[in-house]
Amino acid sequence: MRKVILDCDPGHDDAVAILLAAGNPDIELLGLTTVGGNHTIDHVTRNAQQVLTVAGLSGVPIYRGASRPLLNDVVTATDIHGDTGMEIHGFTLPEPAVPVEEEHAVRWIVDTLMREEPGTVTLVPTGPLTNIALAARLEPRIVERVREVVLMGGAVGAGNVTASAEFNTFVDPEAAAIVFGENWPVVMVGLDLTHQALATPAVEARFASLGTACGDFVVGLFDAFRRNYKDAQGFENPPVHDPCAVAYVIDPTVVETVRVPVSVELAGTLTRGRTVADFRAAPGADCHTAVATRLDVDRFWDLVVDAVRALG
Amino acid sequence: MRKVILDCDPGHDDAVAILLAAGNPDIELLGLTTVGGNHTIDHVTRNAQQVLTVAGLSGVPIYRGASRPLLNDVVTATDIHGDTGMEIHGFTLPEPAVPVEEEHAVRWIVDTLMREEPGTVTLVPTGPLTNIALAARLEPRIVERVREVVLMGGAVGAGNVTASAEFNTFVDPEAAAIVFGENWPVVMVGLDLTHQALATPAVEARFASLGTACGDFVVGLFDAFRRNYKDAQGFENPPVHDPCAVAYVIDPTVVETVRVPVSVELAGTLTRGRTVADFRAAPGADCHTAVATRLDVDRFWDLVVDAVRALG
Amino acid sequence: MRKVILDCDPGHDDAVAILLAAGNPDIELLGLTTVGGNHTIDHVTRNAQQVLTVAGLSGVPIYRGASRPLLNDVVTATDIHGDTGMEIHGFTLPEPAVPVEEEHAVRWIVDTLMREEPGTVTLVPTGPLTNIALAARLEPRIVERVREVVLMGGAVGAGNVTASAEFNTFVDPEAAAIVFGENWPVVMVGLDLTHQALATPAVEARFASLGTACGDFVVGLFDAFRRNYKDAQGFENPPVHDPCAVAYVIDPTVVETVRVPVSVELAGTLTRGRTVADFRAAPGADCHTAVATRLDVDRFWDLVVDAVRALG
Amino acid sequence: MRKVILDCDPGHDDAVAILLAAGNPDIELLGLTTVGGNHTIDHVTRNAQQVLTVAGLSGVPIYRGASRPLLNDVVTATDIHGDTGMEIHGFTLPEPAVPVEEEHAVRWIVDTLMREEPGTVTLVPTGPLTNIALAARLEPRIVERVREVVLMGGAVGAGNVTASAEFNTFVDPEAAAIVFGENWPVVMVGLDLTHQALATPAVEARFASLGTACGDFVVGLFDAFRRNYKDAQGFENPPVHDPCAVAYVIDPTVVETVRVPVSVELAGTLTRGRTVADFRAAPGADCHTAVATRLDVDRFWDLVVDAVRALG
Repeated sequence: MRKVILDCDPGHDDAVAILLAAGNPDIELLGLTTVGGNHTIDHVTRNAQQVLTVAGLSGVPIYRGASRPLLNDVVTATDIHGDTGMEIHGFTLPEPAVPVEEEHAVRWIVDTLMREEPGTVTLVPTGPLTNIALAARLEPRIVERVREVVLMGGAVGAGNVTASAEFNTFVDPEAAAIVFGENWPVVMVGLDLTHQALATPAVEARFASLGTACGDFVVGLFDAFRRNYKDAQGFENPPVHDPCAVAYVIDPTVVETVRVPVSVELAGTLTRGRTVADFRAAPGADCHTAVATRLDVDRFWDLVVDAVRALG
Repeated sequence: MRKVILDCDPGHDDAVAILLAAGNPDIELLGLTTVGGNHTIDHVTRNAQQVLTVAGLSGVPIYRGASRPLLNDVVTATDIHGDTGMEIHGFTLPEPAVPVEEEHAVRWIVDTLMREEPGTVTLVPTGPLTNIALAARLEPRIVERVREVVLMGGAVGAGNVTASAEFNTFVDPEAAAIVFGENWPVVMVGLDLTHQALATPAVEARFASLGTACGDFVVGLFDAFRRNYKDAQGFENPPVHDPCAVAYVIDPTVVETVRVPVSVELAGTLTRGRTVADFRAAPGADCHTAVATRLDVDRFWDLVVDAVRALG
Repeated sequence: MRKVILDCDPGHDDAVAILLAAGNPDIELLGLTTVGGNHTIDHVTRNAQQVLTVAGLSGVPIYRGASRPLLNDVVTATDIHGDTGMEIHGFTLPEPAVPVEEEHAVRWIVDTLMREEPGTVTLVPTGPLTNIALAARLEPRIVERVREVVLMGGAVGAGNVTASAEFNTFVDPEAAAIVFGENWPVVMVGLDLTHQALATPAVEARFASLGTACGDFVVGLFDAFRRNYKDAQGFENPPVHDPCAVAYVIDPTVVETVRVPVSVELAGTLTRGRTVADFRAAPGADCHTAVATRLDVDRFWDLVVDAVRALG
Repeated sequence: MRKVILDCDPGHDDAVAILLAAGNPDIELLGLTTVGGNHTIDHVTRNAQQVLTVAGLSGVPIYRGASRPLLNDVVTATDIHGDTGMEIHGFTLPEPAVPVEEEHAVRWIVDTLMREEPGTVTLVPTGPLTNIALAARLEPRIVERVREVVLMGGAVGAGNVTASAEFNTFVDPEAAAIVFGENWPVVMVGLDLTHQALATPAVEARFASLGTACGDFVVGLFDAFRRNYKDAQGFENPPVHDPCAVAYVIDPTVVETVRVPVSVELAGTLTRGRTVADFRAAPGADCHTAVATRLDVDRFWDLVVDAVRALG
């Protein structure tokens, strides 16, 4: 059992990541923390509540986190995620039946990490890295207590928001620089990997055939994502980014990685928010970052289908 | 009575600021928070304890804050503040007789501001703005609850660490950008003002003549500061920066200010950390920043002497 | 007799600079070179022709130079200089009676400097520094042959286009960095100085009383400048920047200067194009830059009036 | 017959590029221009003379160009090119038997382009782009007269000097930005392509078997390059960058390219000098840049061997 804090901004693919983390038997999901990203903090927090409600999960607490990036103005991705941040059609999202905790996400992350056994908790951020960066600055001792940070974000090849940068690292580059810069194990599950996790019609059919509420929910998410990604970025099948990070936590053989130093460009005019991986030499012993390169697509979707089936 | 949180990195002039805030009858000093700056967080926190011990102040809690800037590496000013951050000669600093609280400074700032009546608490940061920035990001609602932020830092004219930037805004420019960017009243007491607060021999004599422990402590601080500022920056008499911010809180007529928009340069090669004031047009109604321009030198020193005398 | 190449972008105040250089007996005006700045290269070159035509100067060759900055896009100042770059009312500008030479300004500058005795030619740029920078890169040996570069541009205090930067250094910061960076004597006659050269009604009356074509031309220039500067920047009386640089060449006691290292910020978001002067320590023996600080206003206008009178 | 100006900084691979351009029957080599890069302008100009001398080419004029980048300080690559910029062992370079012309390279490029039929001359820069950028700024009309600019430089994937940037664009990023920004056809033959042009032992053997002076010269170049690239960057076989650009000019089917917008990052801390290609959407009709992607290795080496054989 891997203890996981899922720090997310649902988001269609965050929703799938939540279902995977909640439905997989090898993960103990300590809680969800939310962060402004795909949409505002209000929307993504409500979306998180709705995902748990659909899945009938009442035991996973939700903590509301940062409403804005450290320095940048708020940027959202309504072209990809619609007016609510998790807009879907043909599936009615329920009113939230689970609460949002009073405590701030960053404080809860810090307190949880200081309370749990060192080396046991994995952070899985799938949105901008604001909460994680604030936690590291608020309590530097968490850095050595975290097992690893497995994040969805960044790109070694082409970006999506700009030619150079992926959305999450573009939205809060300073937070990304803090997270990549701290000396904890960081696995970057970026576009290089997640553009392999495409929700093809065949994949979608597997969820449709489950005949469950969660299965139908995933179908609704994929339908919306398909339309939006087609319109916004010309994808035939939409890339389902965030569950890839969760899949790595469940089984690192599903997501191949390579150790390489990664830094975040803050000052560039064209490259701000770019994750710069330095492949010029073999990584040193002090290299604490790795980049995901190849997805075992079939086993990945098996994991997700199994988890969604388990949730019913 | 003005409720004040003094966020400092003692530091010789921070020590004088603490004495002024603690000894002046118009200020209710809610607590000291410390931040890495003039020296490391360990040193400046211990120095804060020693200042309160010298002054016999057992009722002012101390909270330890950020050990490093948001993005920059740690920079200290041992050329000005010596090996301990508050090195003096001819005066023996006592072992700390007051504790450091368990709670982190940033959490305590947030909780205090959320607990106290809105509009009653003034933040007086005299070091890098890391704690204040983290508090604003951790709990955005504090911004409208703070009465004002009266900070020592920045420069409209020449800087000191670089030609363009003053030490505090140079050390953590991102934090400075956050603090100047939030929509609370900010009074920048920068080098333009503090270079008028010179500890001349005549000023020093006033403290010597008090014949008290605190008076002698100030003399020791000034002697060390004189030597260091002479060697490092060629000053005949050292500028005693930090109490100027406290003086403004006590009596704004002692420190003349002018409303002007101020932003912080983050990207410059020569100008990183510079506070850019825009004097080209009259400030708009939404201008929430002001810059200190002229010090009433005599009344300033009167305030400090009176406070130090009161402390005994 | 000081040999001068006047590199300009007329421009009302450039026109006055031309008249001063052409009418003063101590200057041998080798030629005018033009550069895109206050308006496009086509306009400012035609304006230069018209100034010489009004003044009846047929012996001063004009060379057309750079149409655009090294890196920046073209920026002009039509708010200050009107639709033609030298728009005036109540005075009819003649059709150009003098030609523009075939040779490019930069080549001519290089060839002239390589032909003339070393140490005899002063460059007086009053627009963006593109031509001068290109010349220095095209033929580095000119640097040690130039007597000095006396330029109008930059600001130690407030800028005009931005809070930090003056128009000429803002328009082509890379060129400015090249010019300030080369090891020739550079005198920066910036806004700190030129905002003292105000065309008050009393000053204007002196030109009106000349009763000459050139006198009336100057009155027309000042009238237009007065209106434009009032509207654009709230000046009661317009600052007549460019002749200040020429006045320094004629008599350096008219323009007080102080030696100080000056660099140009290229990377700043708020400060790009700022001239950063470092006053923190006494200038080293290798300091080759100086900044103009105080104008002897009366003697300055005497010089300009005398020159305009001499031109008839 | 394609008229070519080869703008180079020999450099071992520049030498091979010169031999290919001079020995191939489809290229009319109008002249060599030199630029500071792999070594100082003095060294690379002398090296160019020596290459022509070895090859017995007396009809190709050499023009000396820029000694330094527009803004950056001089950077050389002695780790790759040795103390002279074209250091070899086991082959004695002759004293130059061909002169360097008086005229500056940039002026000659401009004059040549203005004299030759528009659309007939191809620029092939294989060093930093300083000369080409200066020419474009000195005479903007050349931009529409050039047939195309086929340059060795840049990288879409990993850089070599930094993780993000290739040597030539790193050394003079501002010049690169000017060249990529002008609206002429630009073909970027960058590391993505040139790391396919490896001088394997089998390749080297082909030159050895020629039994000619030029063949032996190439063998000497490859031997030195092999040793240096092994030591400096861990290559088993050295990449021979510069002739790839010439090969594209001779036969564009040897070097596959893809049209894509390319810009140069100037401001980045980690990415300065990076060529940013934007593959996110199909290139617009106004896209004037292309990036080389795949080398037909066999036909490439055939071209080079044939040219070297032809030179004797």
